[in-house]
Amino acid sequence: MYSAVDHQWMGEALGEAQKALYLANPNPRVGCVIVKDGQVIGRGHTQRVGGAHAEIQAIADAKANGKDIAGSTIYVTLEPCSHTGRTPPCVNALVVARPAKVIVSMLDPNPLVSGGGLARLTDAGIEVQCGLLESEAQAINRGFISRMTRGLPWVRMKIAASLDGKTALPNGQSQWITGPLARADGHHWRAQACAIVTGVGTVKEDDPSLNVREVSTHRQPWRIIVDSKLETPPNAQILNDLQDSGVIIVCAALDDVDKVAKAKQFQKRGIEVIAFANPQGKVDLPKLFTYLAQEREMNEIHIESGFKLNGSMLREGCVDELLLYYAPFFMGEGIGMANVPTLPNLSTREDWRILDQSMIGTDLRIRLIKN
Amino acid sequence: MYSAVDHQWMGEALGEAQKALYLANPNPRVGCVIVKDGQVIGRGHTQRVGGAHAEIQAIADAKANGKDIAGSTIYVTLEPCSHTGRTPPCVNALVVARPAKVIVSMLDPNPLVSGGGLARLTDAGIEVQCGLLESEAQAINRGFISRMTRGLPWVRMKIAASLDGKTALPNGQSQWITGPLARADGHHWRAQACAIVTGVGTVKEDDPSLNVREVSTHRQPWRIIVDSKLETPPNAQILNDLQDSGVIIVCAALDDVDKVAKAKQFQKRGIEVIAFANPQGKVDLPKLFTYLAQEREMNEIHIESGFKLNGSMLREGCVDELLLYYAPFFMGEGIGMANVPTLPNLSTREDWRILDQSMIGTDLRIRLIKN
Repeated sequence: MYSAVDHQWMGEALGEAQKALYLANPNPRVGCVIVKDGQVIGRGHTQRVGGAHAEIQAIADAKANGKDIAGSTIYVTLEPCSHTGRTPPCVNALVVARPAKVIVSMLDPNPLVSGGGLARLTDAGIEVQCGLLESEAQAINRGFISRMTRGLPWVRMKIAASLDGKTALPNGQSQWITGPLARADGHHWRAQACAIVTGVGTVKEDDPSLNVREVSTHRQPWRIIVDSKLETPPNAQILNDLQDSGVIIVCAALDDVDKVAKAKQFQKRGIEVIAFANPQGKVDLPKLFTYLAQEREMNEIHIESGFKLNGSMLREGCVDELLLYYAPFFMGEGIGMANVPTLPNLSTREDWRILDQSMIGTDLRIRLIKN
Repeated sequence: MYSAVDHQWMGEALGEAQKALYLANPNPRVGCVIVKDGQVIGRGHTQRVGGAHAEIQAIADAKANGKDIAGSTIYVTLEPCSHTGRTPPCVNALVVARPAKVIVSMLDPNPLVSGGGLARLTDAGIEVQCGLLESEAQAINRGFISRMTRGLPWVRMKIAASLDGKTALPNGQSQWITGPLARADGHHWRAQACAIVTGVGTVKEDDPSLNVREVSTHRQPWRIIVDSKLETPPNAQILNDLQDSGVIIVCAALDDVDKVAKAKQFQKRGIEVIAFANPQGKVDLPKLFTYLAQEREMNEIHIESGFKLNGSMLREGCVDELLLYYAPFFMGEGIGMANVPTLPNLSTREDWRILDQSMIGTDLRIRLIKN
């Protein structure tokens, strides 16, 4: 059904989509190439929110190149939108441009509009094909798909550990477990996220900034602190640089005057304070993630936290993906990766599936998803 | 200096050497192919100890094929021996066979004879080249090289753990952490060793056989129990199947009548009992390994033990290679990989170097060597 050349051009479109990795949130990362007479005449990828979608970019690129799109084949990694959101529907522009054919990798995952864009194109007499390199296109937009289909963000947990699974010395020292290349790779994953989540324990012990520094990006993810008792120190580094991104402190409840006063102080500085309590008086993590997806349009969440919050996240089934870095040494005594409950029996264990493993400098990285 | 064709044929010779992986100990694994007119006319690999070396096998193979070796090129992964050991020198047979050229991967690592074989061939008017795919040839014979150059075996430690570095539940359950393919891969490494070393703790808790079952082999490695106080239960499984391989129990000292009596009981059954004490009254591990190399001709040692002995081995610098299997789950509380001392500071850590990482079924295997 698809030719080798189709695969090649859709590969190019996927390469375009990659360029939107740090940029497109909360929109999906989409790439588009327009091909005519065996040559790319226009290419584009999703811009910052409110900016042009990939197809509009590619059409503008072709026009800037003085090319006529009529009769071309357009390769786009996601079904063109048919509804007016922050920008007008892309299908309108495509219908006007009159390509002979549009090939897309995957349908819009939003069940309310899925298939609508392709139907509009077909109605306008444009040939349409769907499904080329679909799993590759899905892999780029796990977060957007998750939000559209589950009403939840895609939650990735990053942990750096020694070979024997320790993340810090007993005295708390954890800088540095992994080498500079692994740390830069970690920032590459941070930059893709809509928000970076950590716990108040990590804020108090390590005082991290949790912004993106090691890779170049035009936007900083939100920073979210899970802090049941509202104990975040007002001078914590993570509260700085609010001009680049927002900070949300999530407590369990604003249930006494002290907390309310503290929250007001934070809010005066532009720091949001919200509350989601579970019956144990801790932050209700599943509710938090539902809120982040459904009220805040967050696709991908990146967790960088410590033993306790990692354990809570795993116990409560909030984690979709593990991003683990192993440095090649034994630490001996130290703080573990995640406070998960002791198994009664090995047969009750829950296995993950290793997606890929690779060397990052002298460290090993493995990515896993739920089985 | 070497042609693509030379690389190809030496690759074939290395493939032959691989066939001797489970077989050749304490001899090196050597492969040989004889090439004439662009065709392999004979091939061979090291046989069981006392049997023919690779070159003799290949010459016999060529003769059995009715081929004349005169004028051929012989590719052999290790310098042919020039001394009489358990078998006559291979160079004699080569001189008689009159190849035009002999290409070898690496010199004999034994400093007393290294270069002697090639000199004999040169003296006989045969062209000689050395160094083709040398590191590949070395990788096959790390154990033999270690014994010849350091007077020590190459010591590999195998550990199977969860993602968070746990090898057993708090109740000791460890069957099974990894899947069947990883366990079979573990037997592949066992089969290569001259001996499998474990501690009396593992013998008492898990009662393993520690023989090779999951891969086909013509010889079983020795089994060695590190047992300072001579507490190995007389009915332990590891003491069975003595017709296939020997068992050595290593205690610290036979320093009371009870231990002497126990040792006699073991010896009556054909089980060796030896003693090497360190000043702490434990087994002197470095002395044990020196003994195994220098008195017992052991090239490669495979350690499968538990938290305590793994820690002692690492602390005392006895381990050359780590063979780690990670199963894709978190165990939480459990027994760690090795009882190594707590680091005062992350900067004092000792890093290993990751040689390779690969999926074995659903588990991850990584191999590391000392940096």
